[in-house]
Amino acid sequence: MPEPETLTVAVQGELGSNSHVAARAFFSPDSPSIVPCRSFGDLFAAVRGGSARFGMVPVDNSLAGSIHEVWDLLISDPPPIGGEVFLRIRHCLIARPGVELGDIRRIFSHPQALAQCSRFLTSLEAVAAIEEYDTAGAVKLIAASHHEGDGAIAPAEAAASHGMNILAEDIQDCHDNFTRFLVAGAESGQPEGGGNLKTSVVIRLGEGARRLTAVLGLLADSSLEVLRVESRKLSGQPWEYLCYIDLRGLVGSDLLARLRRESIDVWLVGPYAEGRRVEPEGV
Amino acid sequence: MPEPETLTVAVQGELGSNSHVAARAFFSPDSPSIVPCRSFGDLFAAVRGGSARFGMVPVDNSLAGSIHEVWDLLISDPPPIGGEVFLRIRHCLIARPGVELGDIRRIFSHPQALAQCSRFLTSLEAVAAIEEYDTAGAVKLIAASHHEGDGAIAPAEAAASHGMNILAEDIQDCHDNFTRFLVAGAESGQPEGGGNLKTSVVIRLGEGARRLTAVLGLLADSSLEVLRVESRKLSGQPWEYLCYIDLRGLVGSDLLARLRRESIDVWLVGPYAEGRRVEPEGV
Repeated sequence: MPEPETLTVAVQGELGSNSHVAARAFFSPDSPSIVPCRSFGDLFAAVRGGSARFGMVPVDNSLAGSIHEVWDLLISDPPPIGGEVFLRIRHCLIARPGVELGDIRRIFSHPQALAQCSRFLTSLEAVAAIEEYDTAGAVKLIAASHHEGDGAIAPAEAAASHGMNILAEDIQDCHDNFTRFLVAGAESGQPEGGGNLKTSVVIRLGEGARRLTAVLGLLADSSLEVLRVESRKLSGQPWEYLCYIDLRGLVGSDLLARLRRESIDVWLVGPYAEGRRVEPEGV
Repeated sequence: MPEPETLTVAVQGELGSNSHVAARAFFSPDSPSIVPCRSFGDLFAAVRGGSARFGMVPVDNSLAGSIHEVWDLLISDPPPIGGEVFLRIRHCLIARPGVELGDIRRIFSHPQALAQCSRFLTSLEAVAAIEEYDTAGAVKLIAASHHEGDGAIAPAEAAASHGMNILAEDIQDCHDNFTRFLVAGAESGQPEGGGNLKTSVVIRLGEGARRLTAVLGLLADSSLEVLRVESRKLSGQPWEYLCYIDLRGLVGSDLLARLRRESIDVWLVGPYAEGRRVEPEGV
């Protein structure tokens, strides 16, 4: 397995994405070298294979909820998870140099980013909002196009990464929007300064047999603090669902055995060092 | 207060929306008269004011999670909630009569509907996906336009409601996608045939003091079955969040008092008759 010598961090998406911004903030004051990956599967493969030391893995957003595609990978064959960080999401309108706000006719971005800037978009006249797979990918797209009327919504970092201009900053409707990232990679598992450890538990439950009730009772009787619970219906399994539970503390073997008895399957993600809230750094 | 004589049902959005489809399925074999409302606030006002006897209120989707805007209204000044139904979501590509699939260059729909048909959209060449506020509203939009290349993604009902053609059916990536609706209106509260009653509890919690843990312990110790839990960060309140909890059964005054002691605020929605899964009716 190759041992990368520098601080390499795999992210899903293009340079300048929110994952890139989260990596800069998490590893600050060190400057990570970003490894863009086409998919979350590629990101996990990069960390497992050693072509990146770490990976920034977005797991949920305070407005949009859990990112199920990522959790599906986290419970199938995850690399070690050690860290956590909450990044405040700040959106900018970005365009080619020389283009002004009044020129913009089409705005490209990820569907969530477009939805989170709806007041700003409504304030513009005769502008079409068009979905792209990635915020920073939308900036890369307009950088390669020669339509004067094209803009993209993305982090400020994406403008810097692709040589574009920022036409408007902080255009999101809600300024209290955080995306939570877990940090993949064996070394990230060392908590610093005696901080709290968290464990995420993913439990597969079925219909009947009071299963969620029993699981919640086990957790309530444990010494762990329950920070977050989210149930998710399983596609293709009409009577089964997954429950994501974030706990402060470690899940011992006795509690794990009891959870297994009350459920169809149980996966542990972590333990990892409890994260802090960070702002995007200036670019 | 005017007493409507017919079976009038307020829905958010245009004729042919999924709320319209849900109303047809819930009240079948009766044929409800649909009252389109611009916003969820208008929908609740129509039911409270008596201009509609019932209202179909979408509260969560098995892929996208809870619809927070609706829950915010449900806990502020809701009409009585009595019924529940789970509608399978089936998307169609709809266009003006005479337009063929190969003509389509722009497809309009609600962001969630576009996201749920991404495999179909990717299979089309040189087609732009453009966001609209409502699926059936997108059909109304293309019905009023004269661009041959315009299509919309919406329920089959929307094609019938607006005199449009269906070019492709069942274009959603996932066929196991259900939206849950609650039925507002005083009379909807009568459970039929001794079915189960459900109660939704919305709890406002703060940071620290093990509050979610304590709440879950109270529920685990009660005789109620916990069907679903979802935590949601509160915008503008960094350390507070809402927790949506669906229970099978009735919340007695003793449990309610205990929940109040462990939380910042508690709201009960229901009790309502537990719903069944329904398919869109043929149109």
